[in-house]
Amino acid sequence: MPGSGGEAAEVADSDMIDHGLRFEFDGDVERITLADPDRRNALGLERMESLTAHLRAIDTSASASVVVIDAEGPAFSAGHDLGELCGIDLESSRAVFDACVDLMTTIHVIRQPVIAAVDGVATAAGCQLVASCDLAVATSRSTFATPGVRIGLFCSTPMVPISRAVGRKRAMQMLLTGNPIDAATAAEWGLVNMVTADDGLTDAVDALVADITRWSSHTIAIGKEAFYEQIDRTEIDAYDFTRRVMSDNAVDDVAQEGIRAFLDKRAPQWPESAEG
Amino acid sequence: MPGSGGEAAEVADSDMIDHGLRFEFDGDVERITLADPDRRNALGLERMESLTAHLRAIDTSASASVVVIDAEGPAFSAGHDLGELCGIDLESSRAVFDACVDLMTTIHVIRQPVIAAVDGVATAAGCQLVASCDLAVATSRSTFATPGVRIGLFCSTPMVPISRAVGRKRAMQMLLTGNPIDAATAAEWGLVNMVTADDGLTDAVDALVADITRWSSHTIAIGKEAFYEQIDRTEIDAYDFTRRVMSDNAVDDVAQEGIRAFLDKRAPQWPESAEG
Amino acid sequence: MPGSGGEAAEVADSDMIDHGLRFEFDGDVERITLADPDRRNALGLERMESLTAHLRAIDTSASASVVVIDAEGPAFSAGHDLGELCGIDLESSRAVFDACVDLMTTIHVIRQPVIAAVDGVATAAGCQLVASCDLAVATSRSTFATPGVRIGLFCSTPMVPISRAVGRKRAMQMLLTGNPIDAATAAEWGLVNMVTADDGLTDAVDALVADITRWSSHTIAIGKEAFYEQIDRTEIDAYDFTRRVMSDNAVDDVAQEGIRAFLDKRAPQWPESAEG
Repeated sequence: MPGSGGEAAEVADSDMIDHGLRFEFDGDVERITLADPDRRNALGLERMESLTAHLRAIDTSASASVVVIDAEGPAFSAGHDLGELCGIDLESSRAVFDACVDLMTTIHVIRQPVIAAVDGVATAAGCQLVASCDLAVATSRSTFATPGVRIGLFCSTPMVPISRAVGRKRAMQMLLTGNPIDAATAAEWGLVNMVTADDGLTDAVDALVADITRWSSHTIAIGKEAFYEQIDRTEIDAYDFTRRVMSDNAVDDVAQEGIRAFLDKRAPQWPESAEG
Repeated sequence: MPGSGGEAAEVADSDMIDHGLRFEFDGDVERITLADPDRRNALGLERMESLTAHLRAIDTSASASVVVIDAEGPAFSAGHDLGELCGIDLESSRAVFDACVDLMTTIHVIRQPVIAAVDGVATAAGCQLVASCDLAVATSRSTFATPGVRIGLFCSTPMVPISRAVGRKRAMQMLLTGNPIDAATAAEWGLVNMVTADDGLTDAVDALVADITRWSSHTIAIGKEAFYEQIDRTEIDAYDFTRRVMSDNAVDDVAQEGIRAFLDKRAPQWPESAEG
Repeated sequence: MPGSGGEAAEVADSDMIDHGLRFEFDGDVERITLADPDRRNALGLERMESLTAHLRAIDTSASASVVVIDAEGPAFSAGHDLGELCGIDLESSRAVFDACVDLMTTIHVIRQPVIAAVDGVATAAGCQLVASCDLAVATSRSTFATPGVRIGLFCSTPMVPISRAVGRKRAMQMLLTGNPIDAATAAEWGLVNMVTADDGLTDAVDALVADITRWSSHTIAIGKEAFYEQIDRTEIDAYDFTRRVMSDNAVDDVAQEGIRAFLDKRAPQWPESAEG
């Protein structure tokens, strides 16, 4: 698989910087910060590979319950690194977009929910990154765009998750004009879950994280995997898959404890493994 | 097929109670009421089987034009019967979720439009039931949630129709947090069609029913079947199917009378069979 | 292929009338006007064939950058020609709906973005036409409906693009009742991109056209083709397709000039072929 040279990445047990990414782990939340504001957090090849490798390591170690991706500076991410694409040959171009797809699909396959915390401009692959996260919170001053058409490079990979989030006509409008939408519009169209005051992002993300980390990581891993497994199927195939997932889930130790606690009107005592 | 022991069910020609369900038929509308408020209209195995069997009987008899599903008490439905799931073995668990899928897909395959009339809390499989109905009306005090994650039992079958109704990020937010959404949000997200005042549900549902029952049941049966047949196909496959449906429909007696009446500026006289 | 007798159509280099359609070309925009207000711009078989043939010719000649479809009179289009359907035989009925599907899918496969400029009533196949265009702008007095159920002819082909634009429950509501929605609702549901004042349609469409024609037609053709190619695929298949499209696009002359100009902070000089 191209661009997967970072397989040996380990989960940070303290602050760590790699290719302009900062990784922080607080025992529940793995926070990944795009920390290259001077280059508007562009997603160069090595940065994407590093991000993908770390997401995989987070999945494998299963120590975190939730992943938050945020950014430093006025741009969440300006998308691909245009310096890297200038004068590129076809083989290298393919490596870049393969690595990009690898990153975006890895977000869906890791066990932890991934939350984009956006304060600023998210364009092209940066907007795609927001669309690819399971959840997204944005400040009111944030904007979203797919401006590739303006430089002759149509946002054809970003269109994949963006068109599935906002629908056909709205995606076409963004793609064909390159015009940005504001955060309120992004929320109305389903590209982000909620909009906060410009100084309220941290609190809103913390609250959302707390609303998820209180539940069993084991159960969330089952549900997230089922979600992406069913979403592209016909309804009947989606049901053929999920009814097995849910009937198996119902007899596991975590669900049985949860059900008993609910019926007994007491807090559940999750089995050790359910926290993993 | 598991859980289909109720095939012999007959359409009520007067009030009838079966497994906490009340069936009323007024000559045009078959009303099914979840009538077990003490157990928050939980969808136990036998209740789901009874509901499915009656929906099939309503389809076969073709006497009603529309089906309305409403409920007694503060909960529309709290979803699966947790008492039934507590200590359940895998085989029985499979029977429960097979019966649930059977119910939800039966709503789509019967000839009559099915309208959910919601006043109160619709959670888990109760929320799935609302999502599965062709149309839904809710009072402003109604709420919708997929809280399975809170008891370790992720709402993996409810996610199927809910994610198809509200989109990815909104479904993920409901599923991962378990937090409820209010009726206004449910309407904005497309989970329900309209919100009424808390004392306006009956009038709104009656008006919606009247807007449907005035048209030919024959035509509606053609359209409803085509809708679910096409919705999961690629656009080109959907067209390959629907263009045959519509060109056949155009030459049938009902359409020809409807077209002639329209051109003559008179009310159509539907053929006898069109009312069936 | 049925109904494609108009293959020999040529792009208008001046005003041209054909089957109640007016074609105007201003060097950048091909404007197609439904110019039969007395028959509420009904989409009869020959009119649909003419429209399809001209769209194909516009694609082949590649002289226009954008296509605008507008209409004369109070109806954008009332849909199929009911006089034509009255007393029709099955073979002719099939020819009508084959031609309709041919028209709607041709909108998606031509290289130019197609914008519906709606001022008035768009019903049945007229509403389908709006749903099928890449973008749509509507005046506030415009309305949209799928009223086929009222004449016994369910809108089974219109449901294909309409259900994909507005979602299941909203499409069902339109289809089962035949009730119209207003322009604001159509925008909220994603059926049209924007609503203008009743006297503001021309300006809004001109602005939207200007926001697209400033970019390379070559790039837009790549992107539009990729959009419809990926939209019905699973996400992973969509990515397998689009990553090749985008990596090939990145090394083409237009993108390389666009990237260089962006890095040099100057306006791009598109290669001659990019304007075509």
